[in-house]
Amino acid sequence: MNKRIVLHTVGWILLLEAVLLCAPLIVSLIYGESSSRNAFLIVMGITAAIGGLLLIWKPKVSNIYAREGFAIVALSWILMSLFGCLPFVISGSIPHIIDAFFETVSGFTTTGSSILTDVEALDHSMLFWRSFTHWVGGMGVLVFVMVILPLGGGGSMHILRAESPGPVSGKLVPKMHGTARILYGIYLAMTVIMIVILWCGGMPIYDCLINAFGTAGTGGFSNWGASIGHYNREFFEVVIGVFMLLFGVNFNLYYLLLMRKVKAVFKSEELRVYIGIVVFSVLTIALNIQHLYQNFHEALRYSFFQVSTIVTTTGFATTDFNQWPQYAKTLLVILMLTGACAGSTAGGLKISRVMLLLKAGKRGIKKMVHTRSMEVVSFEHKPVDEDTIRNCTVYLCAYCGLAIVSILVLSLDNFSFETNVTGTIACLNNIGPGLDLVGPTGNFAMYSWLSKLVLSFDMLAGRLELFPLLILFVPAVWKRGPHSRHGRHLTFKQLVMGWRAGL
Amino acid sequence: MNKRIVLHTVGWILLLEAVLLCAPLIVSLIYGESSSRNAFLIVMGITAAIGGLLLIWKPKVSNIYAREGFAIVALSWILMSLFGCLPFVISGSIPHIIDAFFETVSGFTTTGSSILTDVEALDHSMLFWRSFTHWVGGMGVLVFVMVILPLGGGGSMHILRAESPGPVSGKLVPKMHGTARILYGIYLAMTVIMIVILWCGGMPIYDCLINAFGTAGTGGFSNWGASIGHYNREFFEVVIGVFMLLFGVNFNLYYLLLMRKVKAVFKSEELRVYIGIVVFSVLTIALNIQHLYQNFHEALRYSFFQVSTIVTTTGFATTDFNQWPQYAKTLLVILMLTGACAGSTAGGLKISRVMLLLKAGKRGIKKMVHTRSMEVVSFEHKPVDEDTIRNCTVYLCAYCGLAIVSILVLSLDNFSFETNVTGTIACLNNIGPGLDLVGPTGNFAMYSWLSKLVLSFDMLAGRLELFPLLILFVPAVWKRGPHSRHGRHLTFKQLVMGWRAGL
Repeated sequence: MNKRIVLHTVGWILLLEAVLLCAPLIVSLIYGESSSRNAFLIVMGITAAIGGLLLIWKPKVSNIYAREGFAIVALSWILMSLFGCLPFVISGSIPHIIDAFFETVSGFTTTGSSILTDVEALDHSMLFWRSFTHWVGGMGVLVFVMVILPLGGGGSMHILRAESPGPVSGKLVPKMHGTARILYGIYLAMTVIMIVILWCGGMPIYDCLINAFGTAGTGGFSNWGASIGHYNREFFEVVIGVFMLLFGVNFNLYYLLLMRKVKAVFKSEELRVYIGIVVFSVLTIALNIQHLYQNFHEALRYSFFQVSTIVTTTGFATTDFNQWPQYAKTLLVILMLTGACAGSTAGGLKISRVMLLLKAGKRGIKKMVHTRSMEVVSFEHKPVDEDTIRNCTVYLCAYCGLAIVSILVLSLDNFSFETNVTGTIACLNNIGPGLDLVGPTGNFAMYSWLSKLVLSFDMLAGRLELFPLLILFVPAVWKRGPHSRHGRHLTFKQLVMGWRAGL
Repeated sequence: MNKRIVLHTVGWILLLEAVLLCAPLIVSLIYGESSSRNAFLIVMGITAAIGGLLLIWKPKVSNIYAREGFAIVALSWILMSLFGCLPFVISGSIPHIIDAFFETVSGFTTTGSSILTDVEALDHSMLFWRSFTHWVGGMGVLVFVMVILPLGGGGSMHILRAESPGPVSGKLVPKMHGTARILYGIYLAMTVIMIVILWCGGMPIYDCLINAFGTAGTGGFSNWGASIGHYNREFFEVVIGVFMLLFGVNFNLYYLLLMRKVKAVFKSEELRVYIGIVVFSVLTIALNIQHLYQNFHEALRYSFFQVSTIVTTTGFATTDFNQWPQYAKTLLVILMLTGACAGSTAGGLKISRVMLLLKAGKRGIKKMVHTRSMEVVSFEHKPVDEDTIRNCTVYLCAYCGLAIVSILVLSLDNFSFETNVTGTIACLNNIGPGLDLVGPTGNFAMYSWLSKLVLSFDMLAGRLELFPLLILFVPAVWKRGPHSRHGRHLTFKQLVMGWRAGL
């Protein structure tokens, strides 16, 4: 393990966080919130100082191999959340550090689960920071740092693999800075367009920002206790609903659209299945909840928003779906598991991974009969190599294992089975609300500190797709050994080439 | 597909069932239950006639390949349940055929889930038949038929693979009749010993038989509404609890014990983990429920019985664990998933399969870092080939997929999330009771016929370890083609050699 490069990179991340804290600082100045302002200033100082300190150790060798990549990603996200929660603690908005840590992890991981019992009691700047973490976490920070900072030729695809969601990576274009800039550009542009549309619809600009951050990162924090239901305006619900779905699409498809490869976009298997899932869910849930609303149009309105918010793992709410019939609730829980497309800002298993698992399962069953069959699984009209399939099945094993352990630890707090199961699913898939006590009108405040830590771990594991965090528990990874044995060395160019490419 | 050999074998199975129906017929004569007697006589006639009819088509080729094996097993179990449920319908004990089918599937698959709201209202002979199906289904009937009937050299290991539980098969001894006889002998001997011990303890002989059938098959049907709790005697609970655990051990280990290879038995990884799981669960649950009982001894008594009944997937009850704290309930649900050892009469995923999945998961995570690692997964001190591991992961995919679809269909009936989730788990793993409405004091009567059919499918799929039933839904399997391409041909000798061997 090249510890120096790990600490060095983490140093840059902390410096970046100090810069990011300027945004809520400005908000605190605008609203004249002095205690929050002081808190942000103190934390900026601490974060910048520690980040700067870490930069003193210059790495001798700047190569990053798989284990360094995983370590950098895991450590960065944990420290970002740890420093990011300090403003809440120092200002007294969330006095207990574990609560504040939970809330900040929930922000960066774009989960949106909250321990706040009264959201509206917080300062504007604090709520701004809380939602801003969604936007930062949505696209991931490490890739950003790797592209803009002088880490030279020692970067590695391993970081990108570890931070970006989806089962497969591949080439997009040969120019690295270009690709990265285009993808961040799309993210920024879509966010701005959304803000403008909401603002034109009459939403206060502060609310526009908060909701756009929550939507773009598919996070789900709101500045109102009733979430989007607070506005009770169909226009806002449709805009936010549609944008959530758009942010759940693989960003590479937008890149293809920009390149005017429209046909290629609509040939995407994952996109088709995604649209199919959304249409099926919206319609069947609307039928299922029809009797609760005045007419089918209204049922459709609530069904559309809730399906959109859950399948994209955002977690906004316009109604308490905890009161819905079982079919609607169960289908929403299943959507929590699948999530949206790989390469989007959404969480969950990702549709492409679920499809690969189903295809591999089908092939496996066929192989029981045709034992000598050499059938290859294909996806997006290309054959998928066996390593990718194996990684998906390992992912499923790890996912089930982690979920079961979490549910068991949560059960010690003696809340209902439904609360514990859906609470774990909501955190592990970066959704936000679950059912029963952690439903849209509930929150995670009642859990013990142990459960909150476990759920924080689940959120981080879910956002980073398990492996960077789970690998910390495999001792063999920490053993010394020549680097060349422990992973292929990849150049900085290959790094960005692979990033978010393929799917 | 060699349809003739399939129908021919199924014919023999139906004839065997007609013979098996003699047992409850005798009970009906003893207790003078004339309407039940008539029902059994009618069904024996129908079953024997149809079975005999199927024997008319003699197969030209008697070779059985993988797909014939799967088809024979799936069809046999479905038809056995269909004919086996007729006595309930004809006698009017369970008037509705779907209810009767559910109850009989639950019997043969050794699940023990019931739709009866008043068990004690049924005739002695009907309850006897209901429990006797557990004993028949526990060891499986097809292997029995293959060994004793004149199917000549055309038998196949595929049937054994399809019917016997566990991820791996291997050699035990070269003599086929010997091996089969020894394993059935152990099953019979253990059942008889248990009956004698219960009888010596003062249990009525009829109850001894019912409870021994339920224990040996790890089924769980009782002749009392309160299950084993009816007796409220610690002696019975300890005896039944210990025997349930014994029937959850891989039968090959008993064979090794008979061969005096004691060391080999205690070297078994699966046995050690099994014992570890039981001890851990009994102790932690006893601590968790201590406050509900007079003293720790009593908590331990109830904890031991419930852990034993759930981990072995039997499903007897001495108390309503639905009233227990969440930790105890959640751990019991997790035990439902793991089940006991492969090669036993228990259901569930089986401990060996869970261990293989965890080991494969761990290796997969290591491989993320050490990309060129060629590490082999080992189990029971032997390397495991990649096909076995792939089958386990395919199994997990299929298992999760089937569970999710079932839960969604059940949700249409609008019962609680906990009821649907644990009801599905209870059926898919052949346990019996779940939590909430399907808890130890509840039953499955309130579900719609659609849900009952889905749950019946789950029970069959769980007992036959998914593939024989799932394969019916893969059209490619049904395509015509030369036999030699569709699976290795195995001789009758190889068939029994592989049966329940290995693990």
